[in-house]
Amino acid sequence: MNPVDLIAKKRAGQALSDEEIAWWIAAYTHAEVPDYQMAAMAMAICFQGLNARETSVWTTAMRDSGKPISFEGMAGFRIDKHSTGGVGDKISIPLAPIVAALGLQVPMISGRGLGLTGGTLDKLESIPGYRTDLSLDEFKRTVLTTGCSIIGQTGQLAPADRKLYALRDVTATVSSIPLIVASILSKKLSEGLDALVLDVKFGSGAFMSDFDQANDLAQALVSVSQLNGVACSALITDMNQPIGRCIGNALEIKESIEVLKGQGPADTWELTEALAVRMLRLSGEAKHDDEAREAIHAVVDSGRALARFSEMISAQGGDAQIIDDETRMPQAPRIEEVNAQCTGMLKRIDAQAVARAGHSVGVGRERADQAVDLAVGVEWLVEPGQELAPETPIARLHWRDKGRDEALDYLRAALIMDGEVQPRTGRIRAQV
Amino acid sequence: MNPVDLIAKKRAGQALSDEEIAWWIAAYTHAEVPDYQMAAMAMAICFQGLNARETSVWTTAMRDSGKPISFEGMAGFRIDKHSTGGVGDKISIPLAPIVAALGLQVPMISGRGLGLTGGTLDKLESIPGYRTDLSLDEFKRTVLTTGCSIIGQTGQLAPADRKLYALRDVTATVSSIPLIVASILSKKLSEGLDALVLDVKFGSGAFMSDFDQANDLAQALVSVSQLNGVACSALITDMNQPIGRCIGNALEIKESIEVLKGQGPADTWELTEALAVRMLRLSGEAKHDDEAREAIHAVVDSGRALARFSEMISAQGGDAQIIDDETRMPQAPRIEEVNAQCTGMLKRIDAQAVARAGHSVGVGRERADQAVDLAVGVEWLVEPGQELAPETPIARLHWRDKGRDEALDYLRAALIMDGEVQPRTGRIRAQV
Repeated sequence: MNPVDLIAKKRAGQALSDEEIAWWIAAYTHAEVPDYQMAAMAMAICFQGLNARETSVWTTAMRDSGKPISFEGMAGFRIDKHSTGGVGDKISIPLAPIVAALGLQVPMISGRGLGLTGGTLDKLESIPGYRTDLSLDEFKRTVLTTGCSIIGQTGQLAPADRKLYALRDVTATVSSIPLIVASILSKKLSEGLDALVLDVKFGSGAFMSDFDQANDLAQALVSVSQLNGVACSALITDMNQPIGRCIGNALEIKESIEVLKGQGPADTWELTEALAVRMLRLSGEAKHDDEAREAIHAVVDSGRALARFSEMISAQGGDAQIIDDETRMPQAPRIEEVNAQCTGMLKRIDAQAVARAGHSVGVGRERADQAVDLAVGVEWLVEPGQELAPETPIARLHWRDKGRDEALDYLRAALIMDGEVQPRTGRIRAQV
Repeated sequence: MNPVDLIAKKRAGQALSDEEIAWWIAAYTHAEVPDYQMAAMAMAICFQGLNARETSVWTTAMRDSGKPISFEGMAGFRIDKHSTGGVGDKISIPLAPIVAALGLQVPMISGRGLGLTGGTLDKLESIPGYRTDLSLDEFKRTVLTTGCSIIGQTGQLAPADRKLYALRDVTATVSSIPLIVASILSKKLSEGLDALVLDVKFGSGAFMSDFDQANDLAQALVSVSQLNGVACSALITDMNQPIGRCIGNALEIKESIEVLKGQGPADTWELTEALAVRMLRLSGEAKHDDEAREAIHAVVDSGRALARFSEMISAQGGDAQIIDDETRMPQAPRIEEVNAQCTGMLKRIDAQAVARAGHSVGVGRERADQAVDLAVGVEWLVEPGQELAPETPIARLHWRDKGRDEALDYLRAALIMDGEVQPRTGRIRAQV
């Protein structure tokens, strides 16, 4: 095939055939199609899109550029959850052990943060000794014995996505829905899943700013996942306010443990529970939502979910004693209470501003080769609907050696005092 | 500046600033912006376009990526002609000496053919000894002493265009009007011109198939040329039928000499004259078209135009005796008359089919590193409106060792026997 003809075809708004897409991705993986041709194709796709069939075939081809994991012949229902990313979004960490304790298997391959906050892997690395780089054999063994395992990307899975992801980043072709779908699902469909639950976020703390975009993305993700034989359901959730009390790597592990103890913030719990319900329903473990919720509460109240988390930590070489002694995780040298410096009723909290506060003190990274500070971050202390006075403590800032003044400004800027009161629960706006 | 931001800006349909465009082209020339980013930008431009100011600034930046020729301080009015390319389009070859003999200076930097037929340079290389690779000093000297010189591209002129031209070819981003304009004019504006005349073609034998596209391109070319201080005028001409009698490299030199002797085919003469009129009008050498036409006829009838062609050949090292003895140019070993094999009135001749016939026997090249066959080609023998019988000779095929059968099929397929009679004169459809 002639790569120029395929680019021209897409540029003209025509659909590519299954054979053309499979050839294109294989040729790109082996560098027979160079980056400049893929860049032109990606930009043409930004304008002309890919239809559902094309997106599905593109995704499958990217998955098959590597060696997908197979659990063939092994008992169990494998299910994962993916979030498009938010501020304070630690949900995967309590969620995986909860559903594992209820009999599901969660083979979760997660990413590091790029941008304002850390990713799930960064957070887990706050646990001393925790290995995110298990071999795929160790990973499978941990899933089969513990019910859940969370590790990082490996070179074997979807190498075409690794190349294309980096290329999209430098060619302004990130925000194309079919390319986002293919990127997310080529990795998730490499995990040997039976089902997948998605948390597609919109708002000031999310990748997509408005509901409609998130809804389009959710529809496309669910459709392509199902076309590839993986049952899928998505929640579309509001990401205009930060999730829970903590933003920061070790701090979010602390909050995750609280959730597993049945003591977490209401909104963190709400999201965790809602996603766990979807997972139990998709797996057939629960016939209706109420039954699922009951099972979830029981497994948390009994301590079995927390025990499962402890087992996963141990299986991955981590220090499970952090569960009872958070001081075994990295601690920031300075903790400072920040006051409101304003008067009136707090209407809502801006997620973006809180994320920037965390970023100022070192929670995230800007380039893939940078380290994050595991100890620093923000503990948020007030809720919408609460009356503030100038001296009201709004947050506790954990910091080390940089960004304190900037963080204080961002934290105060996160206080939105006009408009209607927007509670932080009730984030789930739609289900696909 | 951040290249990703500039691509994103163009992708979003926003105009780039003058500084942004200048930075972008300079960075691309020095490979600080890699091919993959330019490929994404080029594709974004295919969809979002460049406005008149952006196109002009982009063109100037590409021109200034090299060292434009300067005739500063030297007497004379410098003017060139550019054609977007056609079938049998040898017009530059008689045109340059005609207007040079009338006192204009024509510093013409021309290209090789890529596609079905040869380019002006390929045709001139049929003249034994003719050097198309004069140094820029030799070129300027020839222009100043002989009035015209036709050479090939040099590395010093618009290197950004050379890179981008090759990249567009492999990324399906050729057919974007602003990028075409910038490519043509970054080279032409490097020639130190006072004025430029354009022949923008449409039809089955042209790059653009319909009049409206050609008209848009012509408008854009004239506007950007004028914005850069070079007077400009364009003819939009019909390229559905081949120009003149000969298609082939040496054969087109032969026809060009006939034109300079006042004996060429009517349609070749019509185009040559019309473009010469535009050049004389733009230069101010003629106050109205009739005056220009009289001067052109006089300079041809007197033999002064032909003498000027002879001088240019000699100045560039070529054998000027070909003018009186065409057998000094490469001759095909086989010449065969092709009959019509059909009966009825010929309505029109399809340019594309005739070009394919020439291509079959080796007139053109497909890759830049291929050689053309200078000797082979087609002499066309019939005109629309003429009654054909099965034995009527329609063309003389000059061939060497390949493509004969295919060429015969194409030549007969070029005979269109239905519809209205379309004479080959009257090609000029509009003037910009």
